[in-house]
Amino acid sequence: MTWLDLPRDTGYGVTNLPYGVFSVAGDAPRTGVAIGDRVLDVAGVTSDPVHATGSLNAFMAQGVEAWAALRAQLTQWLSDGAHRDRVEPHLVPRDQVTLHLPFEVADYVDFYSSQHHASNLGQLFRPGSPPLTPNWKHLPIGYHGRSGTVQVSGAPVVRPSGQRKAPSEDVPTFGPSRRLDIEAEIGFVVGVPAAGPVPVTDFASHVFGVCVVNDWSARDLQAWEYVPLGPFLGKSFATSVSPWVVPLAALGAARVDPPARDVELLPYLDDTKERWGLDLRLTVSLNGVEVSKPPFRQLYWTAAQQLAHLTVNGASLRTGDLFASGTVSGEGHDERGSLIELAWNGECPISLPDGSTRTFLEDGDTVTISATAPAVDGSRLTLGEVTGRIEPAP
Amino acid sequence: MTWLDLPRDTGYGVTNLPYGVFSVAGDAPRTGVAIGDRVLDVAGVTSDPVHATGSLNAFMAQGVEAWAALRAQLTQWLSDGAHRDRVEPHLVPRDQVTLHLPFEVADYVDFYSSQHHASNLGQLFRPGSPPLTPNWKHLPIGYHGRSGTVQVSGAPVVRPSGQRKAPSEDVPTFGPSRRLDIEAEIGFVVGVPAAGPVPVTDFASHVFGVCVVNDWSARDLQAWEYVPLGPFLGKSFATSVSPWVVPLAALGAARVDPPARDVELLPYLDDTKERWGLDLRLTVSLNGVEVSKPPFRQLYWTAAQQLAHLTVNGASLRTGDLFASGTVSGEGHDERGSLIELAWNGECPISLPDGSTRTFLEDGDTVTISATAPAVDGSRLTLGEVTGRIEPAP
Repeated sequence: MTWLDLPRDTGYGVTNLPYGVFSVAGDAPRTGVAIGDRVLDVAGVTSDPVHATGSLNAFMAQGVEAWAALRAQLTQWLSDGAHRDRVEPHLVPRDQVTLHLPFEVADYVDFYSSQHHASNLGQLFRPGSPPLTPNWKHLPIGYHGRSGTVQVSGAPVVRPSGQRKAPSEDVPTFGPSRRLDIEAEIGFVVGVPAAGPVPVTDFASHVFGVCVVNDWSARDLQAWEYVPLGPFLGKSFATSVSPWVVPLAALGAARVDPPARDVELLPYLDDTKERWGLDLRLTVSLNGVEVSKPPFRQLYWTAAQQLAHLTVNGASLRTGDLFASGTVSGEGHDERGSLIELAWNGECPISLPDGSTRTFLEDGDTVTISATAPAVDGSRLTLGEVTGRIEPAP
Repeated sequence: MTWLDLPRDTGYGVTNLPYGVFSVAGDAPRTGVAIGDRVLDVAGVTSDPVHATGSLNAFMAQGVEAWAALRAQLTQWLSDGAHRDRVEPHLVPRDQVTLHLPFEVADYVDFYSSQHHASNLGQLFRPGSPPLTPNWKHLPIGYHGRSGTVQVSGAPVVRPSGQRKAPSEDVPTFGPSRRLDIEAEIGFVVGVPAAGPVPVTDFASHVFGVCVVNDWSARDLQAWEYVPLGPFLGKSFATSVSPWVVPLAALGAARVDPPARDVELLPYLDDTKERWGLDLRLTVSLNGVEVSKPPFRQLYWTAAQQLAHLTVNGASLRTGDLFASGTVSGEGHDERGSLIELAWNGECPISLPDGSTRTFLEDGDTVTISATAPAVDGSRLTLGEVTGRIEPAP
């Protein structure tokens, strides 16, 4: 399939070709595509200045035809040995590059689309009330996050400080979060703007690709602040994204039917004609130890429904808009996408091989979330990984 | 005070000098300063390319010394007749210019800092529960809004559609909002970025100026969606801002003590050394009829406290960040900053001189919110106005 000598399980084969922004030594950041253990310098090999801007935004704004044309061109160059002499000089070993935030984030929206996660959090945050709010199966609940604190994988995560008040305390105290958590999610990156509603059937005309997201969360700050206007400081300190954006075009073999819905949907959310369930498999590792395998395909709401909902009120869409799935949690105990679920609010600590246990994150902990998808050739492609290490509060 | 023949009540005297972005005919947008009924072409009169970018961001990023230097220069040019020949060619009648969104909005945060508003909304949205949530007097509650739908005054507001479910209905229906509302607010525009916490005492080193904000709200969409993650589609369709950003330096005479707080504040919110209460007086007009006069000075939380809170978890700040006060509502019935409060959830319709009544906005209605502040010379300066007309749902 390619003149490059790639192992079948590379994850970065010619069926993947995810886009990122990289630099070598002190050079200006430019667009690259991951292939095997190397990066193809797209700016160099195409000589197209759109790939030398240091961000994917300008290319993402060009639309599906431009995306398809470049993908076809890159596939040909990397598959047909006749192009080897021309292409090979533009390949850089991946371990020699610095990867940057691949796109400028316009608005960042975080959804809440896993029924298992929402039920778990409902039980933990609102004990005694029904775990799902009455609206949950009628619309994909979401909220706006802080786009200015979206950062690329590898950037450190400084433990946030803020107000915390346990139910047993009379007044809040100020200090570093004692309940620092992760949320394993998949993010969808908008390429083509829209002035208004984007129907479910137009999803692939606007969304360029997907990445892995860790929506770091300070549960103690969040619990005290979030009624009535939602999460704010509990989330706004940092959101990490993987450096590679996998184009939707690479995920054809990953499409599956979403779960059956047990409440009739309003027409704008009806996705029977355009089903965007995706068989992505996430893995969460804490200090190198796998602690969870969240299954994306179990999500109740698809990204196409999320986008239709997000815009149905007339809200416009910009290139660089990022919307994330919400924490991916499956039915099983070992499929939960956050520590508050995995350790059940501290009641069931996670045991690590070094003999230590975790309920929430400690300073120095490193969390890595990765994801894979079935590729058209029967192998699995990777969405790469998003990682971050907890630094102590200043 | 100036060689321009300005009436004392102009509101746009030399003590104001608000910044905006304007164009004449098809010319490129550039920075201007409002003076009387004219606009001073700052790009032209200074020949500084930072004012020819079509946005205030680059200038705002330069910091307080640059802001003070230009303000002193403009004041001198407009006050001393010796500069008349040099300056006058750069004055353009205000009625000949098009005003643009004055800055690129990075992140948009909306607070909830009027005790009267929060109490009123609490009674209306959560009848039977205490009107203020337990956290309200411990921290300035806020949430992130959609920066991509912030628009300049005058841009039409299309009635949003979405899911609505009255308490008497079993399931939601989809359609145009039946409870379209306003929120009269003041917005604060960040000039100088910060990598982390901005103490209350550093407020004026980061915030460039203020504008008037109308945070349009669809109360029916909001009521159905907002538990548990806060407002989303009920707010994200449009937020309008006034075209002139009044520099903080113009508001020295407006500073007042904020109201007494009856709960002890955590040290990072203690503002006894840096009090940023502001005696701004808002006016809300519906189809040209004044319906409310919200008093900004009654707000429980100041903008300096809001900024300290927003960043205390380590969240960074960018040039162009906009944070708004939340609806300004005073104690009096005619001081409320939203229709849901003025007409008390539809129970007490507002009577207009044409014999019609309003509970919420009808198609074709125009809402204008303006604000004034005391100026150093004893007159009042204006923050200008933000206006929008409701267009029917598509």
